[in-house]
Amino acid sequence: MRRSHITQFTVEFGDCDPAQIVFYPNFFRWFDSAARHFFVAAGLPPWRDMEATMGIIGAPIVDASARFLAPATYGQAIEVETAVSEWRGKSFVMKHTARRGEVTLAEGQEIRIFARRHPKDPERIQAIGAPDDIRKLLE
Amino acid sequence: MRRSHITQFTVEFGDCDPAQIVFYPNFFRWFDSAARHFFVAAGLPPWRDMEATMGIIGAPIVDASARFLAPATYGQAIEVETAVSEWRGKSFVMKHTARRGEVTLAEGQEIRIFARRHPKDPERIQAIGAPDDIRKLLE
Amino acid sequence: MRRSHITQFTVEFGDCDPAQIVFYPNFFRWFDSAARHFFVAAGLPPWRDMEATMGIIGAPIVDASARFLAPATYGQAIEVETAVSEWRGKSFVMKHTARRGEVTLAEGQEIRIFARRHPKDPERIQAIGAPDDIRKLLE
Amino acid sequence: MRRSHITQFTVEFGDCDPAQIVFYPNFFRWFDSAARHFFVAAGLPPWRDMEATMGIIGAPIVDASARFLAPATYGQAIEVETAVSEWRGKSFVMKHTARRGEVTLAEGQEIRIFARRHPKDPERIQAIGAPDDIRKLLE
Repeated sequence: MRRSHITQFTVEFGDCDPAQIVFYPNFFRWFDSAARHFFVAAGLPPWRDMEATMGIIGAPIVDASARFLAPATYGQAIEVETAVSEWRGKSFVMKHTARRGEVTLAEGQEIRIFARRHPKDPERIQAIGAPDDIRKLLE
Repeated sequence: MRRSHITQFTVEFGDCDPAQIVFYPNFFRWFDSAARHFFVAAGLPPWRDMEATMGIIGAPIVDASARFLAPATYGQAIEVETAVSEWRGKSFVMKHTARRGEVTLAEGQEIRIFARRHPKDPERIQAIGAPDDIRKLLE
Repeated sequence: MRRSHITQFTVEFGDCDPAQIVFYPNFFRWFDSAARHFFVAAGLPPWRDMEATMGIIGAPIVDASARFLAPATYGQAIEVETAVSEWRGKSFVMKHTARRGEVTLAEGQEIRIFARRHPKDPERIQAIGAPDDIRKLLE
Repeated sequence: MRRSHITQFTVEFGDCDPAQIVFYPNFFRWFDSAARHFFVAAGLPPWRDMEATMGIIGAPIVDASARFLAPATYGQAIEVETAVSEWRGKSFVMKHTARRGEVTLAEGQEIRIFARRHPKDPERIQAIGAPDDIRKLLE
């Protein structure tokens, strides 16, 4: 069984737009939060600590997508279930499923890399393959 | 030649995250804004007027995706070029290209429908095919 | 003893700015959410129901302020304690205290009115005094 | 005459809430952006450069407030006029006036300090008085 994690959110008034439903970029905001909660639940330290110890500044996004299946509005409790669904060369795929009770609201996918600062130019970042011990924590 | 529209944005401090780069859901926020600017430039009235006259309450998203090619940070001017790239049965595809000067930052895609309130249940919405006169404006 | 309510939040990565701390408008976003959670805990229906039954479309803000006492960063659990501190003619004052454990992060204040649509012009809103039964719930 | 700067914004669909008007924390987001545009127009380098050269990591907020006088909705062009209205010991006051044409929408105030990292603990920040050359640029 692969590791998964569920993060709880409440849809707030300010998350909704004049059509009374969630303004869709907020789903990506929740996916990004859910990814971080997944990392923390798996035992990864905060990025600020990983930079100090391993030089890893984070897991930036290279691709994100979502299908929106049902709308949600303020006052509703939703949850996002998150898992790593695939390891590729230097990237990995996270799946997020947003639900309200039994209703699936959105299915999202993020492709991320682990990144460090470029050794010769601190303004640039560089993808590195997931170190084995990190990968073991997330599988 | 198909119609396209360019919308200008400035990356603000608050659009960026602790990694000093744009927090990625903001690209979707800009795509949604760029879609609205495209509609307005094409001659569509605001949604609040279209609801009153045509019963169309907006063009909600059913799918959104983006590839992130280069990071951006605060103080930078970016532009998003937007066009409708495809008409399907009841949905249509919008392409967004975010650039900073010559550098492509992100390529995004939104699939939208035109929607009205369900005639029997005002809490639900219903996809309708793009009316011909609206479609003509956007092509 | 006057009624108060505590709402829990987690500071997320995307809530923080390049200085690694909460981007301050997010505190007002949390205060607005905390106000809604306070109303719900007190027994008020959602605004969409109150509009249908009482014509009250919400409790818009006329004034908001905050003092920021200590910074917060992502991964931290915070709570906001909320109460109505004062009833004025047509407005009322809400106090919000944001804390992380024992540390007070911010003290906020919102002045709100109850509003309905203007009877002669649905584009405008009109302040109404808090109906007695609503006021009783919130005290 | 003291220096002032006007920054232009467009109210976007996603800036508005289910009441169809600007979700109020966005005014503080615009004030923060307007403050940065004011600093840039006055000749201040980006914070990332000021940290490298002068050790100043930014001008964090210690207090923020706003009075909301008229609502705004999506599709409207607004402008924010910004000036430093007062210099205090280690802090200074910025005034922001948000207008749509002749209509004043909101009057805001931010109290900020210039900050550097604490010399003994890089996790903490320290207020420093505005260096003379910076103050001269902003007056």
